[in-house]
Parts: sequence; C-alpha cells; structure tokens
Amino acid sequence: MMLNIVLINPEIPNNTGNIGRLALGSGCKLHLVKPFGFEIDDTRLKRAGLDYWQHLDVQYYDSIEDFFEKNAFAKMAFLSSHGTKSHYDIPFEEDLFLVFGKESKGLPKEITEKHPDQLYKIPLFSEHIRSLNLANSVGIVAYEGIRQLNL
Amino acid sequence: MMLNIVLINPEIPNNTGNIGRLALGSGCKLHLVKPFGFEIDDTRLKRAGLDYWQHLDVQYYDSIEDFFEKNAFAKMAFLSSHGTKSHYDIPFEEDLFLVFGKESKGLPKEITEKHPDQLYKIPLFSEHIRSLNLANSVGIVAYEGIRQLNL
Repeated sequence: MMLNIVLINPEIPNNTGNIGRLALGSGCKLHLVKPFGFEIDDTRLKRAGLDYWQHLDVQYYDSIEDFFEKNAFAKMAFLSSHGTKSHYDIPFEEDLFLVFGKESKGLPKEITEKHPDQLYKIPLFSEHIRSLNLANSVGIVAYEGIRQLNL
Repeated sequence: MMLNIVLINPEIPNNTGNIGRLALGSGCKLHLVKPFGFEIDDTRLKRAGLDYWQHLDVQYYDSIEDFFEKNAFAKMAFLSSHGTKSHYDIPFEEDLFLVFGKESKGLPKEITEKHPDQLYKIPLFSEHIRSLNLANSVGIVAYEGIRQLNL
C-alpha cells in the first residue's frame, strides 16, 4: 500500500462508499474511525460499495484515540479548510496518512490545534462555497500524491 | 473562466450537483449536454446544489450536436476508461474543455472514435473497479489542470 486515506467520523454512507471505490482505484489503504453517522453494514453503504468493498484494504478504529495510538509513528497530513498551505505542497512519501474530517464540520479542533504545521487545504476559487464534497476532496489529494510519487 | 467541464448526458442528479459545487470551487465553467437522466429542476439536484447553483457559470445544450456546433473551435480533452494516455499528460491550457461521459457508459462511441488522440484516463490500480465515480473523476482532472496552469 502506498498511501493511507483516513476518515475521522464520516457521516454520509454514500461518501464512504465512494471513497472506498476511490481507495481501491488509487491503491490506497482506507482507515475508518468510529463513531460513524451510519451503520457500516448500512444498506446504502453496501449499495455504494458492494461489488468492490470485499477487495478493499480497510481498517476500523473504535475512536480517535485508538487511531492515534495504533499509528503513533506514522507521518500524517491533515486536510482542513482552515489549512494555510495548499494540498499541492503536501510532502508526499510512501505510507503517508491523509487525514480527513467529517462532512459537516471537518476535523475536530483537538486535531487541528495539535498539528498546525501539517494542515493543508484544497485551494478554492469562489467565496460561495466553503469546501468541496468529502469524496471529491479525497480523490483530488490522493491523485496529487500518486503524481508526486510517480506511482 | 480558466477551464471548462463538460458533462455529456449525465444520469445521476447528485453527481451533477456535486460537480456544480466542484466547478464553482475550482473556478471552471460547467457545460451540461441534454438529455439528462433527470429534470434540471429535480428536487435532488436542488438539494445537492441549491445554495451555490445560482452563482455557477453554467451553459445548457439541447444535444451533443448542439454542443459541438457551439464550440467548434474549442480545444478539448476527452476522459474515458478507454483512454491510452494518463490525465496527468493532458496538455492543459486556458479555456480547455474537459469532456466527460455519462455514469453508466462513459462517452458515446461516436465521440471516442472521432478523437482517439485526445482520449485520456485516470490511472487505476485495481482490477476490481472499472472507473471512479464521475464527480470524483472531474475533481481529480480539474485540480490537475489547476496545478499545471498555476492558477
């Protein structure tokens, strides 16, 4: 596995399904941190991901604490609309963790305040939206990593 | 406007709504070619796009013929899982049209067979999926263009 996609407390099953497809397509491992806004065997997630979900390299965590404990030595980049650097400037390297927050609120403050130098955002060119759809954001960042790493 | 996103006969309103958000966020103009798989004032499209749709630069076409007639002199790149070149190799330039097919079938043969040298695909690293979600694909390609054009 080349890159890791982390979803902290995702809320919308269709997004998580889409991101599963994206993780598989981009050769990334998916990390899903509970609580979710849905049941993992929810019909909608299955419908969005059914055919390929079984092939996905996915790991589940009981909590944010559990995730950070189990990946204490991993290098991470945190995606946030509060980031001051562009996602194009993420120093991608093998096994980097790309960490995304929940759809409604992004990453919790406890994370963004702890890692101010690793906060990145996707540049936006309109004042009328605050962020992109979560699945779109994951795709944009993952494929920038694939480009940088020449995968 | 820097880049143009074209959806040929999109089928799923939620995707088109997401792509509207993406077009606005990335500063692209959106071109929607009928027939659609939904009514443009469909409740779901509105729900996906309501807040920002009014700010979007969007043009509608009655048919594929209408689209090509009205943009006869535009430079275009066509995205297809049958593409032989990677989307990273698209020669992005100001006002380039990025043309995407419908969710279920991609671009019609009449288009792919006519433009074999302008067919690009997003590289995939799994045999278990044939393509990414349409909105994800648009985001990945548009933001590669933004990077290349230094926008």
